Amino acid sequence: MAARHSHAQAGDLAHLLGPRGQTMTAQLTPGGRIETMHGILTHDDLIGQEWGSRVFSHLGKHFILLQPALDDVLRDIERVTQVVYPKDIGYILLSLGIGPGSRVLEAGTGSGALTAALAHAVGDQGHVFSYERRAETQVAARRNLEQLGLAQRVTFQVSDAADGFDEQDLQAVFLDLPNPEDYLAQVRAALQSGGFFGSLLPTTNQVSLLITALKQHDFGFLEVSEILHRYYQPIAARLRPVDNMTGHTGFLIFARKLVTGQNEAED
Amino acid sequence: MAARHSHAQAGDLAHLLGPRGQTMTAQLTPGGRIETMHGILTHDDLIGQEWGSRVFSHLGKHFILLQPALDDVLRDIERVTQVVYPKDIGYILLSLGIGPGSRVLEAGTGSGALTAALAHAVGDQGHVFSYERRAETQVAARRNLEQLGLAQRVTFQVSDAADGFDEQDLQAVFLDLPNPEDYLAQVRAALQSGGFFGSLLPTTNQVSLLITALKQHDFGFLEVSEILHRYYQPIAARLRPVDNMTGHTGFLIFARKLVTGQNEAED
Amino acid sequence: MAARHSHAQAGDLAHLLGPRGQTMTAQLTPGGRIETMHGILTHDDLIGQEWGSRVFSHLGKHFILLQPALDDVLRDIERVTQVVYPKDIGYILLSLGIGPGSRVLEAGTGSGALTAALAHAVGDQGHVFSYERRAETQVAARRNLEQLGLAQRVTFQVSDAADGFDEQDLQAVFLDLPNPEDYLAQVRAALQSGGFFGSLLPTTNQVSLLITALKQHDFGFLEVSEILHRYYQPIAARLRPVDNMTGHTGFLIFARKLVTGQNEAED
Amino acid sequence: MAARHSHAQAGDLAHLLGPRGQTMTAQLTPGGRIETMHGILTHDDLIGQEWGSRVFSHLGKHFILLQPALDDVLRDIERVTQVVYPKDIGYILLSLGIGPGSRVLEAGTGSGALTAALAHAVGDQGHVFSYERRAETQVAARRNLEQLGLAQRVTFQVSDAADGFDEQDLQAVFLDLPNPEDYLAQVRAALQSGGFFGSLLPTTNQVSLLITALKQHDFGFLEVSEILHRYYQPIAARLRPVDNMTGHTGFLIFARKLVTGQNEAED
Repeated sequence: MAARHSHAQAGDLAHLLGPRGQTMTAQLTPGGRIETMHGILTHDDLIGQEWGSRVFSHLGKHFILLQPALDDVLRDIERVTQVVYPKDIGYILLSLGIGPGSRVLEAGTGSGALTAALAHAVGDQGHVFSYERRAETQVAARRNLEQLGLAQRVTFQVSDAADGFDEQDLQAVFLDLPNPEDYLAQVRAALQSGGFFGSLLPTTNQVSLLITALKQHDFGFLEVSEILHRYYQPIAARLRPVDNMTGHTGFLIFARKLVTGQNEAED
Repeated sequence: MAARHSHAQAGDLAHLLGPRGQTMTAQLTPGGRIETMHGILTHDDLIGQEWGSRVFSHLGKHFILLQPALDDVLRDIERVTQVVYPKDIGYILLSLGIGPGSRVLEAGTGSGALTAALAHAVGDQGHVFSYERRAETQVAARRNLEQLGLAQRVTFQVSDAADGFDEQDLQAVFLDLPNPEDYLAQVRAALQSGGFFGSLLPTTNQVSLLITALKQHDFGFLEVSEILHRYYQPIAARLRPVDNMTGHTGFLIFARKLVTGQNEAED
Repeated sequence: MAARHSHAQAGDLAHLLGPRGQTMTAQLTPGGRIETMHGILTHDDLIGQEWGSRVFSHLGKHFILLQPALDDVLRDIERVTQVVYPKDIGYILLSLGIGPGSRVLEAGTGSGALTAALAHAVGDQGHVFSYERRAETQVAARRNLEQLGLAQRVTFQVSDAADGFDEQDLQAVFLDLPNPEDYLAQVRAALQSGGFFGSLLPTTNQVSLLITALKQHDFGFLEVSEILHRYYQPIAARLRPVDNMTGHTGFLIFARKLVTGQNEAED
Repeated sequence: MAARHSHAQAGDLAHLLGPRGQTMTAQLTPGGRIETMHGILTHDDLIGQEWGSRVFSHLGKHFILLQPALDDVLRDIERVTQVVYPKDIGYILLSLGIGPGSRVLEAGTGSGALTAALAHAVGDQGHVFSYERRAETQVAARRNLEQLGLAQRVTFQVSDAADGFDEQDLQAVFLDLPNPEDYLAQVRAALQSGGFFGSLLPTTNQVSLLITALKQHDFGFLEVSEILHRYYQPIAARLRPVDNMTGHTGFLIFARKLVTGQNEAED
C-alpha cells in the first residue's frame, strides 16, 4: 500500500478481482500459489505485471491484478475481530485531524484495524505509537500491519496505559479501552496543548464516566455522538434499505486538551 | 496545515482557543490584528511563538495558539455552504482508499470542502484534480484551499465533466454533480483498472439512475448507503441525544471500475 | 381478548407466564393439556380460575394465568410471517384515526397481523373489511383472528382490489399491496370525503409511483415517512443499544381524500 | 370524536379543510364564526350539514366539513407542549395492550396528549385514570379532553404519585414522570398480575435507575427501546428524506408485573 510502483514486485500485497467479483489478497512471494475455484495463479506469473492488468489462471479465467485499498484490508481485519467499523474510522481520522505527518498514539492496539488506518493516513513522515497490555494481542496486530507494509510507521509497545506513555507533544491520542477515564492524566502528559483526544465506548454508563473525568482533567470542546450506517440494496428498480443493519458499534467521544483552569463551565 | 514547524510563522494559519472555549482562525500577516471581546492580539506578537503556547491579549487574557486541524476548517467551510458533512467526508476518504500519495479527481469543486479534505489526505506526494463548470465557484474554493496552505496540491480546472478529464490512471474519481450517470464514460477513461468511483446524491431517483448507468459501464462492487450522525448532550448526569439531528445529507454510492464484460450479474 | 370476564372460561385465549419468564398461549378447551418443561397443566384446572392468579403444574411449579395483550399475539403472528411490525402498526392506527367504532378497509389481508390490530382497535361497535386475492392466504389469517376472538369484527372477502370494494363512506382504507397506485379510483369510491388512505411499501420506486398517483386522484395531505426502532440491552450498569436492528420494514404513506379539483399544488 | 352522527351538531368538534389544504378546528356553537383568508363561515351554516360535505364561505370558496381524527388533534396539542409524539404514542398504546374496554392509569397528566390518545382508544366501555401533582396543569389538559368530547372517559385526580393510587387490578400503568423508579410499589398495588407498566424517559441515566428498580420490584419482560421517525419530501421525482429530523424524544421502557420472587435472573 505504501510503495506505489507501476508493476507488481515480490513483497507487494496483491488484490485479485475474480470473474464474478470475488476478491483475494496475498503478499507476492516467489514460488507462491493462489488457488481459486476458477483455477490456479502462480505468484511468479504475477510478479512483474502492471497493476490493473488482466492475469490468467491455468484454466484461462481472467482476473484483475490490483493493489488493495486500505478499506479492502480493514474489512478483512474487521471480519475477524470486529473492533472498529469503517463508518467510525473515517470520522475518527477526521475528528483527530490525522493526515500526512501526524504523530498519534493509540491504546490499546486490539486487532490493529485502527492502527492500520492511522498508519495509512500519517504517511511516511508521520508516526503511530500503539500501546497494548497483552503481548499476544499485539503480535497479531503487528502481523496485520506488516502484511500491509505499514509496520515501519508504527512503534508497538507492550505496556499498560496506567504506566503512562513515553511520548510527548503528540497531536492526538485515542483510547480504545473500557475505562479511558482512568488514564486522562497520562493522556494529558503525552498530548500537546490543544491536542485531540478520542475514544469509542459501547455503553452509556462508560460515556458518563468519561465525560465527568474529561471535565475534571481540563479537557474542553467535548463532543459525544454515534454514527448509524445503513446500506441499500443496489438495484435500480427496487431501491430500498437492506433489512438488517448494525444498530450499534459504540459512542464516539472527542475532546481537546486545554491548559489547566481553562475548561468550559459545567451546566 | 501542511507545514508543521514548531513555531508560528508569517503565512501560517493560526487557530486561537479563547478563555471560554471560543475559537478564531486567521492567517498570520505582519501588522495584522485579531480583535476579541477579551482584548486584542497582534499577529506580530503571535509570529515566532511556539505552537501550543499561551499568548496574551492587551487585556491580559490568555489564549492558546494552535495550528488548526482540518476538521476545524471544514466545519467553517461547511457553515457557509453546507455541501459535504464530516460524517460523509471521513467515510468517502476511506472508501476511495485516499492516503498519502493518492492521485484523485473530483468534479465539481463546489465549496472546496471535499477538495480540502482530499488535499489534506493525499499529502505532498499526492495530487487532487478538481473540475468545476462555473469559474466563479472555483475562485471561492481556491481561496479556501490557499488559506489552508493546501492549494499547491490541487490542480483547479474550469471545465464541464461532459468534455472529459485530462488525467488517466487515477486511483479514484468522485463526482459531486446532480447527474453523475451522464459522465461515466469520462470517468472510466480517467480511472485505472480497479479504481474507485464515488458519488453523493440527495434523492433516491438519482441513485436509481446512477446504479443503472454504473452497471452499463462495467462498474462492479456497487455499494449504496447513508450515514446518520447523532450528537449527544455531553453532560454526565443527563446523557441523552440532542433534540435535533440532520435527517439527511445524501446517499453515498461507491463502485470499482472493472474491465469491460466483467461486471456482476444483475438480478 | 374481546370478552373480559374476571375468570377464565372455555374458549378464552390464555397466556401463561412461566417460572423463568417463558410464555405460552392456548385456547382453553375442556380436556386440553399444556406441556411445559416445568410440568403439565390441564385446561380443566385453568378454566374457572381468576385471571392473574397463580396456577400450578403437576410438578408444583407455578405459572401466572393471564389474558394475552394484543401485542403478545401480534408478535406471535409476526414471528411466522413478518409482515407488519408493532412500530409500524401503532403509527398506522394513529394516523388513520382508528378507534372504537371505526369502519376501516384493508387489502390485502396477508397474515392478518394488521387485521388483528385493526379489529382490536375498532371494538365491537366498529368493523373491519379485509380483502385478499388468494383464498388460502385468507384462511390462515381468519384462523388467527378466530383464535383471538376478533373474527366477528371482520368481514373477510376473497376478491381482487381491481374489482373494487363493496363498502362506501369508510373512515379509512389501508392498502398492503405492491401496486397500490393501481387501485386509487377504487379507494376513492369506498372512502368518505376527507377519509384516510394509508400504505406500506418496501422500495423507493413504489413510493414515487404512489405519490404521483395520489396527486392525480385528488388526495392531499401526503405524508411519507419511515420508522426506525432500536432496542437497548435492559441492563442498568451496561446500558447500550443491541448490536443488530431491523434496518428497514417499509415506507409509510398517508393521504386524505379531497373532493375533486381540490388537491394541493405540485412543486 | 366520540359521537359519530351523520350530521354536524352544536357541540361537535368540526375540522375544516380549506381551498389549499389549510385546516381549522373549532367546536360548533350557535352564533359562532370562523374567519379565514378565504372568507367567513358561520357555525349556524355548518350545523346540520352532513359530515364530508362541501360548505361555502361568504366569498364562495368551498371547504370540506369533517370530524377531526385523533391524530389531527394530538398534533395540535403537541405543537403547544411537545410532550409525547405520535410515533411514540402509537407504540405505547400497542405495547400496553390498550383497546376498547381497557382500564389504564397515567401519571402525570401533562398536556393531556397521551391522556387523549388513551381515552380515544379505550372507548366508552373503558376508562382512564389520570394523576397530576399540579392542579393548574391538569386544568389545561382537562380542557383539551373536553374539547375532544373525551373527558367523560377520564377521571382526573390532583395527587402526588408518592401517595399511591386509588385503583386496583388495572391493565396498565404509564408513568410520564422524571423519577418513575420512586413509585413502583404504588404501581404494583394498582396493577393486576401480569399487567403492563410503561414509561418514557429522556436520559440514559434515568433509564438505568428505572431498570434497577423494576428488577427489584419484581417486574419482568423488560423492554427498552427508542423510535426514530424520519419524514420524506413527498415529491415523486425527487424523493428524499427531509433535512431535519427529531433526533430524540425519549427512551421507551416497558415491563410486566410478575408475582413476587418470580423475576428474571439479572446478568
